[in-house]
Amino acid sequence: MTHEQLLERAIRLSIDNVAQGGGPFGAVVARGGEIVAEGVNRVTALHDPTAHAEVQAIRLAAQKLGRFDLSDCVLYASCEPCPMCLGAIYWARLGALYYAATQHDAADAGFDDAFIYRELALTPAQRRLPTATLCREEALEAFRRWREQADRIDY
Amino acid sequence: MTHEQLLERAIRLSIDNVAQGGGPFGAVVARGGEIVAEGVNRVTALHDPTAHAEVQAIRLAAQKLGRFDLSDCVLYASCEPCPMCLGAIYWARLGALYYAATQHDAADAGFDDAFIYRELALTPAQRRLPTATLCREEALEAFRRWREQADRIDY
Repeated sequence: MTHEQLLERAIRLSIDNVAQGGGPFGAVVARGGEIVAEGVNRVTALHDPTAHAEVQAIRLAAQKLGRFDLSDCVLYASCEPCPMCLGAIYWARLGALYYAATQHDAADAGFDDAFIYRELALTPAQRRLPTATLCREEALEAFRRWREQADRIDY
Repeated sequence: MTHEQLLERAIRLSIDNVAQGGGPFGAVVARGGEIVAEGVNRVTALHDPTAHAEVQAIRLAAQKLGRFDLSDCVLYASCEPCPMCLGAIYWARLGALYYAATQHDAADAGFDDAFIYRELALTPAQRRLPTATLCREEALEAFRRWREQADRIDY
């Protein structure tokens, strides 16, 4: 399948998902032009605030391939990914991203990803999310043990 | 439990998780000082690049409470959340965030969240992730149908 066909598939998923009571988002993970996994927004159905189409497709693709590294795969999203999904794309090391609608189109439909993008660019103290830090010294112990772990799997 | 005790619980989870072969991260979602759900990093064990401690705790808390809105809950994380987890925190509308170690401590241990923070602040064209846009007009149809959906659940 071509990039355009794979993106059209993600768009088809987004349209069909609205009819099924879900959010207007779809995503496809493909490798060598073949679909590995698909995802749609299931936030309200699953009571899972992280169940965005991209996260769903990434999780399923990683499960199917039996590895968390999807660097040989490409993500096709019906809409520009929000910061959470973009973070997931980086952690999964996806090779490339194609998307159709923009975050501004999403905002027009009531999804304010732009707010989260703005918040992330601020320091914790500047954000609207009340944030406090405590116990830093105690927490460093986990990192010390991690570095000492000879058989750790880096990710 | 106090904020400090809840954060100490998240830190304890992060330390124990290293011994169990997982990443050095733990998180707790609490409501009114009571633990609702706990999470540890399970990326390598589950082959799930999104299975960070915070995401795991948020997903479990939302499932337990039967709703995606956790605005009456607080997240305690052993380390400053990465952009993916911070995005999840905003989508879950958590009321507050407490964390212990910083993203710089995480970077010292080999987890380069800072790279993802820098990438998110760039435009798609500037990012190291190859990104392309296609088919925007076709994708707007999902948003049109979403707006027409009288019984939609906004989130």
